[in-house]
Amino acid sequence: MNLIILDPKQSLGEGVYALSDRQQLHISHVIKASSGDILRVGGLNGKIGEGVYQAPDKEPKGDRVNGTGTIHSLSLTLEPPAPLPIVVVMALPRPNMLKRTLQNMSAMGVKEIYLIHSAKVEKSYWQSPVVQPDVIDSVLLEGLEQAKDTMMPKCQLVPRFRPFVEDQLPEILEGKKGLLAHPYQAQACPVNLHEPSVLALGPEGGWNEFEVTKWLAAGMESVHLGERILRVETVVPVLLSRLYPAGLSS
Amino acid sequence: MNLIILDPKQSLGEGVYALSDRQQLHISHVIKASSGDILRVGGLNGKIGEGVYQAPDKEPKGDRVNGTGTIHSLSLTLEPPAPLPIVVVMALPRPNMLKRTLQNMSAMGVKEIYLIHSAKVEKSYWQSPVVQPDVIDSVLLEGLEQAKDTMMPKCQLVPRFRPFVEDQLPEILEGKKGLLAHPYQAQACPVNLHEPSVLALGPEGGWNEFEVTKWLAAGMESVHLGERILRVETVVPVLLSRLYPAGLSS
Repeated sequence: MNLIILDPKQSLGEGVYALSDRQQLHISHVIKASSGDILRVGGLNGKIGEGVYQAPDKEPKGDRVNGTGTIHSLSLTLEPPAPLPIVVVMALPRPNMLKRTLQNMSAMGVKEIYLIHSAKVEKSYWQSPVVQPDVIDSVLLEGLEQAKDTMMPKCQLVPRFRPFVEDQLPEILEGKKGLLAHPYQAQACPVNLHEPSVLALGPEGGWNEFEVTKWLAAGMESVHLGERILRVETVVPVLLSRLYPAGLSS
Repeated sequence: MNLIILDPKQSLGEGVYALSDRQQLHISHVIKASSGDILRVGGLNGKIGEGVYQAPDKEPKGDRVNGTGTIHSLSLTLEPPAPLPIVVVMALPRPNMLKRTLQNMSAMGVKEIYLIHSAKVEKSYWQSPVVQPDVIDSVLLEGLEQAKDTMMPKCQLVPRFRPFVEDQLPEILEGKKGLLAHPYQAQACPVNLHEPSVLALGPEGGWNEFEVTKWLAAGMESVHLGERILRVETVVPVLLSRLYPAGLSS
């Protein structure tokens, strides 16, 4: 946790914010702060700066929080890091990959994510406890805390492929370059894009023929990613870095 | 497992290779091959092609292998994918990050890896069961199997920082660009290098002042990676993709 992100829901009024249990544990055990210490904080979906820490009456014991510390006297003046100008549409990966992949996308600055069904996505993946809006949000929040960002990504679940690609995609794609990761009849994925994009990443085993036809009909171009087959959790940082190297380190 | 990699140690003579238990389980449960089927195989540190599968007398039950299948009649004619022209020197990460990071580097084509001590590496990390040459080799092998590569990376453990940087590094660095990931007094990390490089990645919390001085004295240049702080398992694919985008997708 490299940034304490304060949600308006944590406000106690008069500029004082209650810390969440996770934040309290981090401050007590890792930062080891005392009352009066100035900590780096950000407002959720807002600016970044500093706040003053007030410890709880009793410090946590192990993982058990014994009272709520607060942050007060906030001074938030800095903009969060720039987002990546990309929309990622990803076939729902297997649950153990999903968490890390979402966290990475959030940490890298992706702000618009669609998790979509595809013929080769196992139906059981949609029943995973990770695929719950509140779990997804907490994973995305961890990505922001890691990367010192405050702007919460939007992640939508798309259990039906066809209506999305036929009805929603054209609007999402407007003014953006559409890239379909698909190894056949494709050119190499571009490097250093100077325009916003929509990137569609398939499941293990790839998109099927019907799906590819639908993506291409909607205006996506197929791009290949080279000879090496990488896991989705590796492909995501590789592609984001390839498409927007300056967005990650400018 | 996207490639069955046959080690000379698996040879039974006369061009027949015994499958490892992991390979047998994959062939029986995932590929679901029968005797006579042609499978994609590679020779460890050699070429890639096909071989003919001979099933064991009894198929595995669950995770329990009941006999050894074999591969025979190999025809290996294709070169493995090109390696990345980079040497990675990484402060030993925490064990849960180490495995995935090594696997990713192997899958992405890194062939020379040094895991080095640094002031901010916890001494206990060196005692982890993951930091054993045979475990490291099996993790690197999984990376090769993922990426359909056969060339085993070399990974060396460097428990003492100073003799490495003073005595070994100059030779390793010869003819290569040395990049030290360090956020202060640094320029942005380059994109699309056209020369081989040595990349040094610090621990959580970074290199200390003494270490930075030593790296710079050895001829490394410090580069920063932007505002966002990413976990080491994310930074590795981000940087490899940034430095050698064409090496990953040409």
